[in-house]
Amino acid sequence: MRDVAIIGVGATAFGELWEKSFRSLGIEAGMKAIEDANLSGDEIDALYIGNMSAGRFINQQHVDALVADYSGMATNNVPATRVESGGASGGVAFREGVLAVASGLHDMVLVGGAEKMTDLDDPAIGSIMDSTADAEYEAGLGVTLASNYAMIARRMIHEGIATREEIASVAVNSHFHGELNPGAQFRRAVPLETVLRSGPVATPLGMFDCAPISDGAAAVILCPLEDAKEHVDRYVKVAAVAQASDTLALFQRDSITEFRATQAAARRAYEAAGVTAADIDVAEIHDDFSVAGVMALQDLGMYAKGKAGAAFLNGETHFDAGKTAVNTSGGLKARGYPIGAAGVAQIVELAEQLRGTADKRQVKDAKHGLAQSVGGNGSAVTVSILEAI
Amino acid sequence: MRDVAIIGVGATAFGELWEKSFRSLGIEAGMKAIEDANLSGDEIDALYIGNMSAGRFINQQHVDALVADYSGMATNNVPATRVESGGASGGVAFREGVLAVASGLHDMVLVGGAEKMTDLDDPAIGSIMDSTADAEYEAGLGVTLASNYAMIARRMIHEGIATREEIASVAVNSHFHGELNPGAQFRRAVPLETVLRSGPVATPLGMFDCAPISDGAAAVILCPLEDAKEHVDRYVKVAAVAQASDTLALFQRDSITEFRATQAAARRAYEAAGVTAADIDVAEIHDDFSVAGVMALQDLGMYAKGKAGAAFLNGETHFDAGKTAVNTSGGLKARGYPIGAAGVAQIVELAEQLRGTADKRQVKDAKHGLAQSVGGNGSAVTVSILEAI
Repeated sequence: MRDVAIIGVGATAFGELWEKSFRSLGIEAGMKAIEDANLSGDEIDALYIGNMSAGRFINQQHVDALVADYSGMATNNVPATRVESGGASGGVAFREGVLAVASGLHDMVLVGGAEKMTDLDDPAIGSIMDSTADAEYEAGLGVTLASNYAMIARRMIHEGIATREEIASVAVNSHFHGELNPGAQFRRAVPLETVLRSGPVATPLGMFDCAPISDGAAAVILCPLEDAKEHVDRYVKVAAVAQASDTLALFQRDSITEFRATQAAARRAYEAAGVTAADIDVAEIHDDFSVAGVMALQDLGMYAKGKAGAAFLNGETHFDAGKTAVNTSGGLKARGYPIGAAGVAQIVELAEQLRGTADKRQVKDAKHGLAQSVGGNGSAVTVSILEAI
Repeated sequence: MRDVAIIGVGATAFGELWEKSFRSLGIEAGMKAIEDANLSGDEIDALYIGNMSAGRFINQQHVDALVADYSGMATNNVPATRVESGGASGGVAFREGVLAVASGLHDMVLVGGAEKMTDLDDPAIGSIMDSTADAEYEAGLGVTLASNYAMIARRMIHEGIATREEIASVAVNSHFHGELNPGAQFRRAVPLETVLRSGPVATPLGMFDCAPISDGAAAVILCPLEDAKEHVDRYVKVAAVAQASDTLALFQRDSITEFRATQAAARRAYEAAGVTAADIDVAEIHDDFSVAGVMALQDLGMYAKGKAGAAFLNGETHFDAGKTAVNTSGGLKARGYPIGAAGVAQIVELAEQLRGTADKRQVKDAKHGLAQSVGGNGSAVTVSILEAI
């Protein structure tokens, strides 16, 4: 397979964007990425779109065709494919796009992720999000993603894997970085006390342990690595795209304090990229709930089980701490969580870091970046590794 | 890229299967394909699932993880990806699966398609199907897939491209073959008069011009062509998988009596496979509405514009007529139309034909098969070409 490069990235600001439609968000992100890559739209060979549920959020299935159409690419009858894997939809779309270029089938691929969530009321939104858990054995019986993560948090506290304060620190870290990202939904730091005292969602998790409801879109442009310098001066190599599944329902697992899918995807990604966890300078992890952040760093092998929480609490995860910087974009918690866009937005942030365009939150001399995107309660995970050129 | 073979196929019967759940349908089709390929489930490297809208039909997003889980493949953390492209979801899933093997990334891939539609009432089902048209400029204003196809039919009749009788003959052809397929939803022939006199849906199209609401699943197993004979005696080569997009809304097109996406995908597929329309012995085309069948044969280059209708009316499309046999499975109209399953079921039928296991509807000496899968009103089309070995 051919090596693949990212030659352009773009994202909308994330937030409650009442004034913007799904299609306008998608076009905004896509055009930014195309301009960033010094291309025109008619140079794109294929589109992959990560989207969780436009069918329910805005009553629009078939958004692959919508995006191809409104970006002008239907004129060339460009193949456009929507992929979905719950919260990992963006990560999976990125992997399919990389595969399309690596295989030799396509030479210039746009991978987009988009979600327009705020047109519905909160109970409807919650119902859609919970439908990424098992509809028959979890969601249909009242189990929510939040209540499952609350059980995980309780178990981790009970087993001494993390304290409540350490779990809450994941959100503090994301907000710390969100303040430095002009495109973030929440651009302000919050103290630990604020997270601990936030209103209960599913005890012990409170409002500030949970990523927000967001609108937004992100896009990246992929081409063969050997062609990258024809288009841009600064680009990034895709060193690995790995993906793994686990049981859909949480109760079917031997352990709920680790995600086997993250472990498997990480193992495959490190092997493909020829690196270890110690080589990762900057990581974007799927902190849809704070406790998931603690699990992520452990399952990715960056910290031993029981040690990741302290890293967040001590600020070792900050962009300027000299260790692996975590969620410099603000993560899902502070940058925002438009579901299908999230996994692609992680790639956008890593590309900015690795080419040195991350401005106030720039990680010094970042060489390797890792993105982890999670569907359901860990039932699907992608791990992608990018490398500075 | 590597050549790819189909070494196993399986499908459930299609119909109103009140007693079967989405997950049981998916497992049934998958296990049949795995057994047909003489494999065990733990030999599968990756899953691709074509599904249009389980999120709305059964309140279950993330069916990639569901299928991986209930087929036992989550035990090995197998990557599982759901793809959607409206009615072309199955065709697009097949293409992604082929790409995964052709690229060298995976050596044994299961492509499944499934839809469980009948748990809802008819207006809800109609609303979901119409959400594959443009939600803002078509569906939201009352335009339906059926009304768009009715406009197309009126235009074709007005321009003399096809008569009402010729259009209706597409359904007659599908029912003729459905009688010969034990897995079809409607296993009986219908005379032309029955189609012409069926209750109006969107004039001139009546009930018998429209594919039914169905439950069902289908699956195929893919591996590198050079490995195929290690597993099975009879297998089929994938000669091409092509895909193209067009505008989402019908009103944006220069012509509504042809689908540019079908034309583009067909052109790419013939070129990749090194064949022409005249080489195709058996074709499965997307007759969700009868008029689409007439368009398909014309846009695929099998008949000149204005000539395809007569082919259906004269029975040239029958399995035993010595021309290109069309919809020997019964097509979407008589075999049934569980949306995400349809494109994969077409591949199942072609594989049966090309390896000579199509029983009463066997096309003699079939060498090349073609499948056309359509999303929306022609806004996404896949064309796949298979070759007998």
